[in-house]
Amino acid sequence: MNVVTAVDSMKGSISSIEANQIITKVFTEKGHIVKDIAIADGGEGTVSAIVKNGDGQKITAHVHALNGQLVTAEFGWFSAKKVAVIESAAASGIQYLDGTKATHPLNTSSYGTGELILAAINHGAQTIIIGLGGTGTVDGGMGLLSALGVEFFDQENQLLSAKGSHLAVVDHFSIEQVDVRLADVSFQIASDVTSPLLGETGAVYMFGQQKGLAENELTNYEAGMKNYQEKICGGIESVAGDGAAGGIGFAVRVFLKGVIQSGFALISEQTGLEKAIKEADLVITGEGKMDDQSLQGKVPVGIGRIAKKYDVPVIAFVGSFDGVQQRFREEGVSVIVPIIDRITTLEQAMNEVEKNLQITAKRTLDLLTLMGKKSI
Amino acid sequence: MNVVTAVDSMKGSISSIEANQIITKVFTEKGHIVKDIAIADGGEGTVSAIVKNGDGQKITAHVHALNGQLVTAEFGWFSAKKVAVIESAAASGIQYLDGTKATHPLNTSSYGTGELILAAINHGAQTIIIGLGGTGTVDGGMGLLSALGVEFFDQENQLLSAKGSHLAVVDHFSIEQVDVRLADVSFQIASDVTSPLLGETGAVYMFGQQKGLAENELTNYEAGMKNYQEKICGGIESVAGDGAAGGIGFAVRVFLKGVIQSGFALISEQTGLEKAIKEADLVITGEGKMDDQSLQGKVPVGIGRIAKKYDVPVIAFVGSFDGVQQRFREEGVSVIVPIIDRITTLEQAMNEVEKNLQITAKRTLDLLTLMGKKSI
Repeated sequence: MNVVTAVDSMKGSISSIEANQIITKVFTEKGHIVKDIAIADGGEGTVSAIVKNGDGQKITAHVHALNGQLVTAEFGWFSAKKVAVIESAAASGIQYLDGTKATHPLNTSSYGTGELILAAINHGAQTIIIGLGGTGTVDGGMGLLSALGVEFFDQENQLLSAKGSHLAVVDHFSIEQVDVRLADVSFQIASDVTSPLLGETGAVYMFGQQKGLAENELTNYEAGMKNYQEKICGGIESVAGDGAAGGIGFAVRVFLKGVIQSGFALISEQTGLEKAIKEADLVITGEGKMDDQSLQGKVPVGIGRIAKKYDVPVIAFVGSFDGVQQRFREEGVSVIVPIIDRITTLEQAMNEVEKNLQITAKRTLDLLTLMGKKSI
Repeated sequence: MNVVTAVDSMKGSISSIEANQIITKVFTEKGHIVKDIAIADGGEGTVSAIVKNGDGQKITAHVHALNGQLVTAEFGWFSAKKVAVIESAAASGIQYLDGTKATHPLNTSSYGTGELILAAINHGAQTIIIGLGGTGTVDGGMGLLSALGVEFFDQENQLLSAKGSHLAVVDHFSIEQVDVRLADVSFQIASDVTSPLLGETGAVYMFGQQKGLAENELTNYEAGMKNYQEKICGGIESVAGDGAAGGIGFAVRVFLKGVIQSGFALISEQTGLEKAIKEADLVITGEGKMDDQSLQGKVPVGIGRIAKKYDVPVIAFVGSFDGVQQRFREEGVSVIVPIIDRITTLEQAMNEVEKNLQITAKRTLDLLTLMGKKSI
């Protein structure tokens, strides 16, 4: 049969690409034809997924990590269309946080992500897709903008370096030094984060603590971010997505006219997902934790909704399921198959996701084909 | 489709009858035709299974439990063929053990199981099937024989009451008082226990401690059993199955000419299992713990071997699986489906077997029928 596999990453365990590989191997070994589509949510793995789906290449650049350390980071490159794909998690990702003062949000910036944009432009990019997610900074994109040539000044007209602690003292800025080539580049934002920049669900209060802000630092930090936002765009209400990647969403929207798309929508468009599903006999999807939140439009339900239009059955492999199966069936997800099949702990299960997914995929295929052509 | 369900009990959780009911409900609700066959291993539930399979009735009798307490116990009755089914677990079962001196093997006997035989004969039984297993006594069947009229004496020719402590002092016995009707009754033993009466794998060393013998009592107790065996049959080597039900196997073989059959063989013959499987589109079986031991011929593999002859697919629902799937496939068990599908503890899983089996059966049926008539 013709199978499309588009399993989301299982956070903390395996990427979408790895999950699809396992499924593909199981099904092709039995003679089925599989088209695999890597899923991305804007965070870590977004570049890999888009490059894989589109047969692009990876380009390495030297940039500064969030703490100023020089590192190598990759961006994706599609030469025919002159499209580059970068992800904020590459240079400014949480993997650089080490609990020290040097990586505390007050001292870090998204400068490296700006450098990646420049590297892509140097490479000839006319369209840049920026994946937002998995970021370790909370600088409102001040670092990114600095790398592109935006200059920030305090009340005494002193030029400010980009870092979290300077958000509070920004007084005005200049775009005189901005790289002129930016005007000819169009930006798309791939992000599944809908937080605004400020407020309870914003970049500081919602995500600050994962990035090292202490609870008692939040109020001051938020005030700094508010100052920065006011000085940049006159305090115009921040919009959904501005809070993505510690506020990089805000900077890319305001300065680079970036248009936000969900990671899923972007992948869907890039890969012709709907057409692939329409032509399939079976669609396989999945995610780590499937619950009522998944009904809000996470990957499997997004896939299910498309498949339902064409009456194509969908199987979702999940790390855990907690919900009403019937509600998912109404969204086109025909059968939910948890990949746990024995007494185990969460830790062990997380370590054995690959094995469990493989065993479950095999068993599922066995059941799907068990009755052969018998009348059922 | 036409389905045969023959799931073994999942020890400590649900009986074969309950497991089959769950499967039957799931499949019939979707319009499939299900024939359910209850499995028995000679232990607790054997009477219920055989009665259910054959549309027999249950008869209640007043008998003595292993500690002498008067209780009610049931036997199965098939009036047309004058067949009775009894199980040693009914009157002499481990459920009567309470850790007190009164239920210590030295003080208990299988007398009540003998009384059940008499009750069946009073009812007109010409054939008696005795299920052995789940027994709390270790009396070599001395109690059972006493109830039937065998008299045991010590060296001083004193008549002995039947109890474990008297095994050691039996000197001779008399069958003068034995119920003459026994001569016209044929006995079948349903048992999956292959232990001999004596030795390391025998009734005392292998099963004594589950029934309350302390480790330091085993040597003396074994000596008593050896004396009993010598005085009964001159020390002729005990045979496989003699050690079943604390030695009742020995007594029924020697005195009642009982012929041993595995529980599965008995059920298979009773229900025309092979014919049912031959005519089915799908066979469902299962057990609590499936592992390499299951390959020695436990129920699912027994079922698989029959189904393989007729190329009928077999699904086994199991509480846990630990083995090489391919080896089971070679025995005709097509797909093994564990019923655990989330992070859980053994205790919780045991408590939720019914729910888990139902969910798994539903999911499995969904997968079996998902592709409909599409070419796969």
